[in-house]
Amino acid sequence: MPPLQQVPPEPSSPCEWIDTEVRVRYAETDQMGIAYYANYLVWFEVGRGEFCRQRGFVYRDFEKENEAHLAVAEAQCRYHSSAHYDDVLIIRTRIQEFRKRTVRFEYEVLRKDDDALIATGWTLHVILDKKGKMKSFPPDYAHFLKSEVTQKA
Amino acid sequence: MPPLQQVPPEPSSPCEWIDTEVRVRYAETDQMGIAYYANYLVWFEVGRGEFCRQRGFVYRDFEKENEAHLAVAEAQCRYHSSAHYDDVLIIRTRIQEFRKRTVRFEYEVLRKDDDALIATGWTLHVILDKKGKMKSFPPDYAHFLKSEVTQKA
Amino acid sequence: MPPLQQVPPEPSSPCEWIDTEVRVRYAETDQMGIAYYANYLVWFEVGRGEFCRQRGFVYRDFEKENEAHLAVAEAQCRYHSSAHYDDVLIIRTRIQEFRKRTVRFEYEVLRKDDDALIATGWTLHVILDKKGKMKSFPPDYAHFLKSEVTQKA
Amino acid sequence: MPPLQQVPPEPSSPCEWIDTEVRVRYAETDQMGIAYYANYLVWFEVGRGEFCRQRGFVYRDFEKENEAHLAVAEAQCRYHSSAHYDDVLIIRTRIQEFRKRTVRFEYEVLRKDDDALIATGWTLHVILDKKGKMKSFPPDYAHFLKSEVTQKA
Repeated sequence: MPPLQQVPPEPSSPCEWIDTEVRVRYAETDQMGIAYYANYLVWFEVGRGEFCRQRGFVYRDFEKENEAHLAVAEAQCRYHSSAHYDDVLIIRTRIQEFRKRTVRFEYEVLRKDDDALIATGWTLHVILDKKGKMKSFPPDYAHFLKSEVTQKA
Repeated sequence: MPPLQQVPPEPSSPCEWIDTEVRVRYAETDQMGIAYYANYLVWFEVGRGEFCRQRGFVYRDFEKENEAHLAVAEAQCRYHSSAHYDDVLIIRTRIQEFRKRTVRFEYEVLRKDDDALIATGWTLHVILDKKGKMKSFPPDYAHFLKSEVTQKA
Repeated sequence: MPPLQQVPPEPSSPCEWIDTEVRVRYAETDQMGIAYYANYLVWFEVGRGEFCRQRGFVYRDFEKENEAHLAVAEAQCRYHSSAHYDDVLIIRTRIQEFRKRTVRFEYEVLRKDDDALIATGWTLHVILDKKGKMKSFPPDYAHFLKSEVTQKA
Repeated sequence: MPPLQQVPPEPSSPCEWIDTEVRVRYAETDQMGIAYYANYLVWFEVGRGEFCRQRGFVYRDFEKENEAHLAVAEAQCRYHSSAHYDDVLIIRTRIQEFRKRTVRFEYEVLRKDDDALIATGWTLHVILDKKGKMKSFPPDYAHFLKSEVTQKA
């Protein structure tokens, strides 16, 4: 299945967002009556997994086939508005930057109902082998993720 | 270091409880303003780990040395009263039943402040090897856990 | 209002199951490489919320309109097989027992891929008012939940 | 009330760190065998709560007395090394910046055993009233937090 690069994106939209939905669980609220702030990093993970899947890169298989992990080196989240129990949130995910040994994902969290911007953030990842050492991105997997970068070259 | 069996317990107290403290985190509350019900299973795990440690059995080492896991087969919790943010809870843990291939832990959760009974519960565990098959308890580790049972024989 | 056992359900279809899907998150795994046992109670909550929604009872609205909560009095889970990262699980939910002041939900967790039974469990709930006192189920909401019992009578 | 930058702290000891310990729970690990990245924000919360408590500011009381919340506006974490199950971590917390309507906490996470730097991060907070509107910090509580600045002035 040929991935995205056959459909060159518009110059004005340098990068494709992939959307995933999550519904806020009761478990994810706190006594402030809103979603607890650490859950956004969990939702980013959900968005990231779905982004990879839709690009033809199943992260579960990646770990098994390469005996490697995509470890988080840094994470940032800005909370614009609160999310509440039972809200359906759209986690928009894209790759902001793809380098030999690192990849940076970018996220936007919107409430589906009213399109309100709830949060924005990013995570920076490194590839670690079984022993925890940094390694380059396996070429076959890099292919899926960097396709849009190639187009821009 | 000889474990517990050198100090025979009183007939009236058939089993020793080991206490661990946890303070309820904001992350653990929900919009009802109380600790979310799934967290009690996490606190049971904390109590269980501390119980083992104080009996001379460091669970982290157990996993590494035996390439085995103490998997949960069943869990039960009864919620008597609510726990709130910042409450210090005492997780009382003991072994209820020790068999060749299973061990059952029992728990009581009390609020330290007023000694209120918050929850009670138990978890049943089986030993699984690396491939997920049931196995007997490694003798050296069983020794630590079943010492009090031996005394009663 | 007679509790459920006084109205014998049909032998063939005692109760309607409602299915919800969750995908196991990386956050929900532990170092054993499987879904951590407390997450099942979270998934039960997801199934319960979806059950209510599909019966015309939005739990979020219930809390607001009645200034009441459906607090958990007891929870039980039996772990039959392990769930892994990225598994799609089906949370099957139904009401096992409906009484004036309590409702018991029953759950089955299946892996969608191979239909394997992963877990079974139940939760018992009481209605608590704003001050934490037990109260009867508001009639209009009870209607949604016990409809199948009424229909079968 | 002048914000922090107008009162230059001593070059040698700009700010007091307050340490809190947490032990990594099994629930907090993931299948990579390390602590899942979102938990650091939970541990930051634990450190923050303890920081406040030791400064004479019990956050639980603050919420009740002021009908206000210290909501998170932004969070950032850099992961330097992995934390593992059963590791005792020291969460070092201090105030980086105190303004009329915002406060920024800074964190360092160290492993107690070998003093390894595990993570660093910060969180930016705003005071929200009951209706979710920003408000100034109540003077009596501000007093506790900015005391070191005042003392040093």
